[in-house]
Amino acid sequence: MATREPRDARPARLDALRVALDKAHLDGVLLSGLANIRYLTGFSGSSALLFVSQRDAIFLTDFRYETQAAEEVGTVAHVHIEAQSLWTRLWAVLPQLAGLEVLGFESAHLEHRDFQRLLEAGARWQWRPSVDLVETLRERKDTGEIALIQRAADAACAALEATVPQLRAGMTELQVAGVLEKALRDAGSEGFPFPTIVASGERSALPHARSSRRELRNGDLLLMDFGAEVEGYCSDITRTFVVGKATEEQRAIHDVVRQANRVAASSVRVGMLGRDADALARDYIERCGFGPLFGHSLGHGIGLEVHEAPRLARTAAAALSPGSVVTIEPGIYRPGWGGVRVEDDVHLATRGPLLLTRFSHELIELG
Amino acid sequence: MATREPRDARPARLDALRVALDKAHLDGVLLSGLANIRYLTGFSGSSALLFVSQRDAIFLTDFRYETQAAEEVGTVAHVHIEAQSLWTRLWAVLPQLAGLEVLGFESAHLEHRDFQRLLEAGARWQWRPSVDLVETLRERKDTGEIALIQRAADAACAALEATVPQLRAGMTELQVAGVLEKALRDAGSEGFPFPTIVASGERSALPHARSSRRELRNGDLLLMDFGAEVEGYCSDITRTFVVGKATEEQRAIHDVVRQANRVAASSVRVGMLGRDADALARDYIERCGFGPLFGHSLGHGIGLEVHEAPRLARTAAAALSPGSVVTIEPGIYRPGWGGVRVEDDVHLATRGPLLLTRFSHELIELG
Repeated sequence: MATREPRDARPARLDALRVALDKAHLDGVLLSGLANIRYLTGFSGSSALLFVSQRDAIFLTDFRYETQAAEEVGTVAHVHIEAQSLWTRLWAVLPQLAGLEVLGFESAHLEHRDFQRLLEAGARWQWRPSVDLVETLRERKDTGEIALIQRAADAACAALEATVPQLRAGMTELQVAGVLEKALRDAGSEGFPFPTIVASGERSALPHARSSRRELRNGDLLLMDFGAEVEGYCSDITRTFVVGKATEEQRAIHDVVRQANRVAASSVRVGMLGRDADALARDYIERCGFGPLFGHSLGHGIGLEVHEAPRLARTAAAALSPGSVVTIEPGIYRPGWGGVRVEDDVHLATRGPLLLTRFSHELIELG
Repeated sequence: MATREPRDARPARLDALRVALDKAHLDGVLLSGLANIRYLTGFSGSSALLFVSQRDAIFLTDFRYETQAAEEVGTVAHVHIEAQSLWTRLWAVLPQLAGLEVLGFESAHLEHRDFQRLLEAGARWQWRPSVDLVETLRERKDTGEIALIQRAADAACAALEATVPQLRAGMTELQVAGVLEKALRDAGSEGFPFPTIVASGERSALPHARSSRRELRNGDLLLMDFGAEVEGYCSDITRTFVVGKATEEQRAIHDVVRQANRVAASSVRVGMLGRDADALARDYIERCGFGPLFGHSLGHGIGLEVHEAPRLARTAAAALSPGSVVTIEPGIYRPGWGGVRVEDDVHLATRGPLLLTRFSHELIELG
């Protein structure tokens, strides 16, 4: 069954991490990033540390997660349940492991307060900051992961289908978010990967609006950017609508964004540099004369986190890995008038890009 | 208007921080915790740094938040908008300020990766880790903050009132969460301070369950733990219901938890130690013979974050400050059978505790 594959994949993931440890000349690594820990162990709770060496895998969590850790982590790592501080337990367990001198830690996932513990209670080991050790592995999704992201994409599209007929002038953005989020739950979403963006009228020109008390009015652009979550894996989709009849100008700008999305989503390829992928949509928008109004980058990877590697941006020099899943989200934002964004999730298969978010790209008039 | 007071309060908050800087012998402090930055400036976005010295207040954010920063921060700090990295801009601005030698940073809100920047690009200053500099100020809420938390509590209670009549056997926990979250949006909640917990049957015994695909069955306990958010301020409430007719045993255990909640919520006082507040409920539950089944602490502060100072726990030695708002959330969890938790938000006024979450404490039978 597709939904079981991510769990079966864990031993191979730990093996791949061990190869990376060898290359980095590390005897072991302390992981504190929860998405990385989930990837390697299956644990979905909010409090954990994981230590991995060639010989051992030690998982620590607190008493609240005793049942959950037994179910989720099972035997892939040695589970320790701690009543007080995970760190106290770590310093009790680590000295019992042989052959450890140089240890890595996650520089991007450890607060200074906890870093100090390494230098104090952990002073007998040499600690080396490491970056993206597990993130790099997570970039190439396996079949099971793609199946879960597809389910998250399907849930998002089903929720949007159910929501569109219920929207009309007079509703607040917060009410629209409520209708959409209820539909996401009905479609089986376990959570919201990021705060739902419902931005109407001139607020749609704010690239990072949250939902507000503003009421929808006839003629408004309505931008909705949201996602679903299935077994920890995220989707991320944006569509822009018009409340009532669309004007010629709204239609023209929506067309440019839609075409930019189609060009990029159908041409993006494994091996392409992130900045060249970005240029697929940006060049089109520039040729149409809207270049200065597309102020953000084209997209980002999604998976256990809603923003992960790779980046599709003007400054992204890395090549896109086979198996990654990325968003393609061009937009045009005119301050005071409004904004249009059309975002899809695309799986970069070796044979070409596969669209995961199958929802109409036409400009839909609401109400 | 009550909702304006938090904004007016910002200059006084910056003054209070400056007094704290003086006491800590710091010439300035770099703030990276977003809730602390919001408290001092009003900024509600997800990317910012704030530097405060006796003379200056420098606010940095990225281009996505240009409009929002102008509206929210206004003139309380000098706003810098940066196209690339906030850190690059910081190192350009900081050398222009006079009289800075010893600077604090937020040890609990700075990842190691960014801490390294202080030692490298920021090497001309002496950096000192500081903890709870702003958190301590945030513990004592002013009238405007209490009004916002009251609105968040009212929204949560209104949402629960609207949800209860819609619940019945056969719905999944995720569907129940959807109904509740839609009602929260309809009641004006700007977001969800934490993932909604809907846990039924034996899953209600998991202190940190999330919502699952489990269907409600007649006779189930149904625990719902959730919150609302108004202008950034959170509420946090739990009620436990029974699907259909309650058994004698469910009723008896609910009664113990409800009484423990009432005793603690009416007796908790300014100046009491956190561990003595915890004991108010714990002693009652122990006297009733359920001590070992109440495995977590009694409560925590709420405000701009859903977990903040003070703590009400067996290990909490600090006295409760006037003006703090705390949760009172005793519970009894019997593995395999189920759990009951009853949680309220209480404002610790000088004249005594004030209940903010006004929702029935009776055991309600659903459907």
